[in-house]
Order: sequence, then C-alpha cells, then structure tokens
Amino acid sequence: MSDQVSKGLEGVVVAESELSNIDGDAGKLVYRGYDIEDLAAGATYEEVLYLLWNGTLPDEDALADFEGPMREEGAIDQRVIDALADLADADERPMAALRTGVSMLSASEPEAGADPRNLDVARRKGRRIVAKMPAVLAAYDRLRRGEDPVAPREDLSYAGNFLYMLTGEEPDEVAEETFDMALTLHADHGLNASTFTAMVIASTFADVYSAVTGGIGALSGPLHGGANQDVMEALLDLDDSHMSAREWVEDTVERGERVPGWGHRVYNVKDPRARILQSKLEDLSAASGETKWLDYTTTIEEYLTEEQGLTDNGIAPNVDFYSGSVYYQLGIPIDMYTPIFAMARAGGWLAHVFEYQADNRLIRPRGRYIGPEDQTFVPLAER
Amino acid sequence: MSDQVSKGLEGVVVAESELSNIDGDAGKLVYRGYDIEDLAAGATYEEVLYLLWNGTLPDEDALADFEGPMREEGAIDQRVIDALADLADADERPMAALRTGVSMLSASEPEAGADPRNLDVARRKGRRIVAKMPAVLAAYDRLRRGEDPVAPREDLSYAGNFLYMLTGEEPDEVAEETFDMALTLHADHGLNASTFTAMVIASTFADVYSAVTGGIGALSGPLHGGANQDVMEALLDLDDSHMSAREWVEDTVERGERVPGWGHRVYNVKDPRARILQSKLEDLSAASGETKWLDYTTTIEEYLTEEQGLTDNGIAPNVDFYSGSVYYQLGIPIDMYTPIFAMARAGGWLAHVFEYQADNRLIRPRGRYIGPEDQTFVPLAER
Repeated sequence: MSDQVSKGLEGVVVAESELSNIDGDAGKLVYRGYDIEDLAAGATYEEVLYLLWNGTLPDEDALADFEGPMREEGAIDQRVIDALADLADADERPMAALRTGVSMLSASEPEAGADPRNLDVARRKGRRIVAKMPAVLAAYDRLRRGEDPVAPREDLSYAGNFLYMLTGEEPDEVAEETFDMALTLHADHGLNASTFTAMVIASTFADVYSAVTGGIGALSGPLHGGANQDVMEALLDLDDSHMSAREWVEDTVERGERVPGWGHRVYNVKDPRARILQSKLEDLSAASGETKWLDYTTTIEEYLTEEQGLTDNGIAPNVDFYSGSVYYQLGIPIDMYTPIFAMARAGGWLAHVFEYQADNRLIRPRGRYIGPEDQTFVPLAER
Repeated sequence: MSDQVSKGLEGVVVAESELSNIDGDAGKLVYRGYDIEDLAAGATYEEVLYLLWNGTLPDEDALADFEGPMREEGAIDQRVIDALADLADADERPMAALRTGVSMLSASEPEAGADPRNLDVARRKGRRIVAKMPAVLAAYDRLRRGEDPVAPREDLSYAGNFLYMLTGEEPDEVAEETFDMALTLHADHGLNASTFTAMVIASTFADVYSAVTGGIGALSGPLHGGANQDVMEALLDLDDSHMSAREWVEDTVERGERVPGWGHRVYNVKDPRARILQSKLEDLSAASGETKWLDYTTTIEEYLTEEQGLTDNGIAPNVDFYSGSVYYQLGIPIDMYTPIFAMARAGGWLAHVFEYQADNRLIRPRGRYIGPEDQTFVPLAER
C-alpha cells in the first residue's frame, strides 16, 4: 500500500472492461472491438446498445426481442409529467430536470422490491430507464415551451421517437439517421467521470436508478458534459460578432481565451467522433444549403491546427467541437445538448454497471489525512 | 503508469484531506484532530458541521452566524411537497424519495445561475441543502402516513427540528441530545463510497445538488448505508423468535448466516462510534426501563466476541450494530434509518466537496480493455 496520492486517478486502472477502448495516439475508439466509424455508419443505436449490454451484435430476431420491450416501456407516468411541469414553471435547468425526472422513475419500477444483487433484474430496470429517458427529456422541453407532452410511438426508432416527442412531428430520414448516429457516438467512452460515478454508486449495489441519476449529475459539470453547449454558444458569439471566423478565432486566441471543444485527457490527436460528426455536418450543410456553421468550424480548426500548432501539442478537436453544430442544424435547443449526451451515455453507464456488478467489489478509496492531530476539545462557552 | 488493476480502489490514496482520520487498529476516529468521543459528548451537530466546513470549532458569535441562515432556510417549497406526496402514493422507498426530493431542491436555488466554479456560492448552496434535508425527510414520512407535513421552527436545533417535524411534537431533551449525537457520529468517515461519489461528481464542477443526490444514491446500497436497517430487522426477528438472544445468535451462526452490523473495511477493532452508541443505548434503556434491545445486542456481542472469536479476527461491531436500537428507542421508523444517515452524512459529503474543489482535478480513472480486437462489422441483414 503506497501513500502516493493519485489525484484525479489519472492513469490508475480501476477495472478491466470489455466495453470500449480508446487509442488516444491513433484517434481510435472501439466498442467491443468494433470501430466506432463502422458502428456509426452501419448500426442503429439500439443495435449498439444491444452490443454493449450483451457482447455481440444482434441478428434480426434478437434485435426485435430487445427493441420490443423498450418501445412498450417508453411512456412516463403522469406523476413524472406533473413534476416536470412544476420544474418547468421554476425555470429549472434541463440537466437538473432530467436528474430529477430519472430519479422519479424508480417509483414506477415494477421490480422495485427485488433483491438489488439480482443482475437480471438490474438489466430490466436499466432497460426501463433507457426506454423512458427520451420521454422525460422531450416532455420537459415541451412543457417549458408551454406545450403538452407528446406520448411515444411504438413504431418509431429510439432516435426517431425522441425527435417526434420533441417536435410533435415525425422526423425526416436524414434527421433521424443523423441523430441516431450522434447517439451511437456518445454511447460509451471508457471510465469517464460520469461512467465512473455510476460504477461507484452501483458498487454498493444501489439500484440502477441511483447509478443513472448520479451519472447525470456528473455529466452536468462544465468539465465533463457541458462543453458541447459551450461550443455552440461560441459559434453563435462569432456569428453575432460581425467578424470573419478567422478574425474571431485570432481575436479569441489573442485575448488568451480557450476555444471550447479542443483538447481531451485521453486523445492526443483528433477525436474520431469529431471526424465522423464533421463529415455528417458536411452532409447536413449540403442538404440544407446552410453552410456557415461548417465554414466557421472548419476555419477555426484550420487556424488552430495549422497556424497555432495546437494539434502538434496534442490539443485537437474533440467530439463537442462538432456535435453542437450538428444538433443546431437539427433544430434542437442548445441547452438540450448535454441532456441528449446523458440520454445516449446512459446506455454506456449501464453497460459498465452490469459488467462491474457481475464481479463486484465496493469502490472505497483512501484519503491521506493531513489535518491536525490531538486537538484538545474546549466547550462552546469557553471558546 | 502501471497496468495493475486496483479493483475497489482499496488502499489507493485519491486525495489529501484535513477532514477525518480513521485509525482502524486503535478504533479511533477524529474530525480535524478532535476525537469523535469529545465531539459527540460536548458539541452539537451544528458545531461539528461548522468544524468540518471551516476548520475550527466556532465561538458563540460564529455559531450564531452559521446557524441563523440554516434555520431560516429550513422550509421546502410546495412543489417539493407535492412531488413527495405523489411518491408517497406510489409507495416509493424513503431513500429514493429523499434522492428525488433533494434533486428537486435545486429548482428553488436562488444562486442557480452563478458560475459553478465559485466556491463561495457552492458553500451557500450546500448550506441550503443541509438546511432543507430534515424537512424533505420528515415531510415524506408524514405524507406516507397520511399526515400533513409540519413546517420547521426557527427556534429549534437541527436535531430537535427534525424530530419535531417528524412527530409534530417538540422532542424531550434526552431524545434531542441522543439524535444530535447520532448525527455527529455519522457526519464524516473518510472517503467511503458515498463521499467519494460526491467528490467524483463535484470534480466536474457539477453543482452540489448533483453531488448530494449522487451521495444519497450510493448510500442507498446494501453494501453501504443499508446495514443499520438490517441490524434492527435482525433484532426484531430475534424478538419474534421465542428464542433467547443466545439461542438466536447460536442458531444464526450455525446456519452460516452473517449477523449484520459486524465488520468494516477500515476497522479491525470495535468501531468507536459503536462504543459511543452502545453507551447511549444504556442511558436510553435505563431512562425508559425498556432494556431488551440492549440485552440482545450485548448478548450477541459477547457471544460473537468471546465464543466465536470474531473480534480476534478483525471483525467487530460497527456503527450500524448499535445505531438501529438507538433509533428504535427514539421511535423512528426502521426504513428511515438509512435516510437519517444520509441527512447526517450530507455535511461530510459537502465538506469533502468544498475541500476537493478548492484544488480541483477531474476524477477520471482508466479501465484496462480486455475485450476483442479488430472485429469485422457485418450489417444486420447479413448477421
């Protein structure tokens, strides 16, 4: 037992995992050995979820058996809608509303009384959470706009259903495919802070509602999930600035400010998810004829890479640098970007929870005490 | 960077801390250098909270400045009461109701829009959470009993207020003192799983509502906070069994079952908190004339220690072994024991969050990937 302090746990290996692997030097991300580019291009989010939770890609029968219950379990109770309406009245931030909404879901859990160590039950509970998160999030966004929630439809995909519940209209194919791909890209990413939070909570055999609620909390932090929103706000700032993208980024760098969406603790080169989203942004821009967001991001990337040499120093665009513009083109409100990240990542949190609980060990590190010793207690009246 | 897996992080030092120190061989626990026995006997929970959050014990003026806002901020909004009433109708478990109730508090936070990196704001937010947790918990218990919540009174102590809101009657001095002492004993205990959860969440600069909500989730697990309830259920089982305590414990051991409330990862001898609570249980039993719970626990402890030699093997009574009987004598419902633990420990979670955020580093460990490599993607139709 060493007394060396591993602050931030950087480099400390907490668990073995078969779920995802990041090669930070090559800019490569795999889920269970499959390259993220192949999954993004060729598999739906439901297939990816099945892969993460079960270890293999499903055939058509297995996929139908997996998707069926999820689609049936997608609706949320009036109790949750009422609470979300109250939160919308209070102008609660969407990540906090999602945290509360998911926490409330456990009151509707049909297997709430089961032994928390029963891993099959944990999987069904996890499936119910993932099934309902789109409804929670879409309902909250509609309620705060003064509109009634839209119930999920069992004939729509996970991605399609979310967009449908958000807008009340069936999404077109490009929007649905793009959003589905974004979900896949965000589904898992090693032991990041929110995934690790879910694992620490679940290592006590607390139920998965607690694990996912905790994960949402961690992801809400500006050092973790908040950056995709920051990127879009920066691009809107540029758009309002009457500067060219080149002038804006020069000005930002000159003022010593960081451009959000650059750098990542585990990548030294361009994040593969950024590459994929950039290519999707190109498609969306070509289809819509609205190219300015693509122009902005491309100009900023070229300047920071080629003239500032950031990439040579291991600082490159991460997933957030391109996800914002993609969501913006899909018409999604900016403060929903991080909640959408949470909705996608919940699948990964649960995959790690299922994997860890199967060979569980309570996660309980040590602190090194550096406080005073042997203080003499003096009663209040004599202080 | 070593690839050794530190499963459960046992022995891994994650942070330096001036908050609490456990000497597991001597059975000694200190908060900022003060022995827990001195604090339990001589300081109120509010003084202990001040000590943990500020580093020194307060004088009378400092204590008044600290307690004043907390007492003013103790009431909860109707919105939270409505949600708790809905959860009570759904028969939600108290820890889950507390998790949801605390998560909802952020919607009433007057400084919700502040920079999450502002540590002064984080402290005020934390104070508001701690101030309101007794009202959340007491309201939930009353609502599920079909009774209206009781509003807090500004003239009562933290411990007294909780018992008052729970029962609707001002508690007697012995009950208030005993409960206050129990809160102090549960306020902090190094980097246990719930404290560490709160730290991981806060290391993203997520707000303290997320950190405390996550801590509640972790504490709800049977490997962490659930054991005090298990102990009382075991004692009630003994009480119903028509066996003597000696026969019951012999029978339990013979059947190869664990007696709950024994053993702790960081203590090899009797937990100092167990010693203090045992002595308090003696006082309560003498005052009430109801001695059977004391007799049961004493008999079980003697048998397991002297005849089974558990203590010689480093397995000794922990805090949960005596807290159950103490709460039972105070008339508190059994499924409120873990939520009360959460209410007391929230002060410690926040103390660690404040300390960690002052020199923050995102907590992000690594997993060692042991899954397949280079899987070839096959589209669904060809699987």
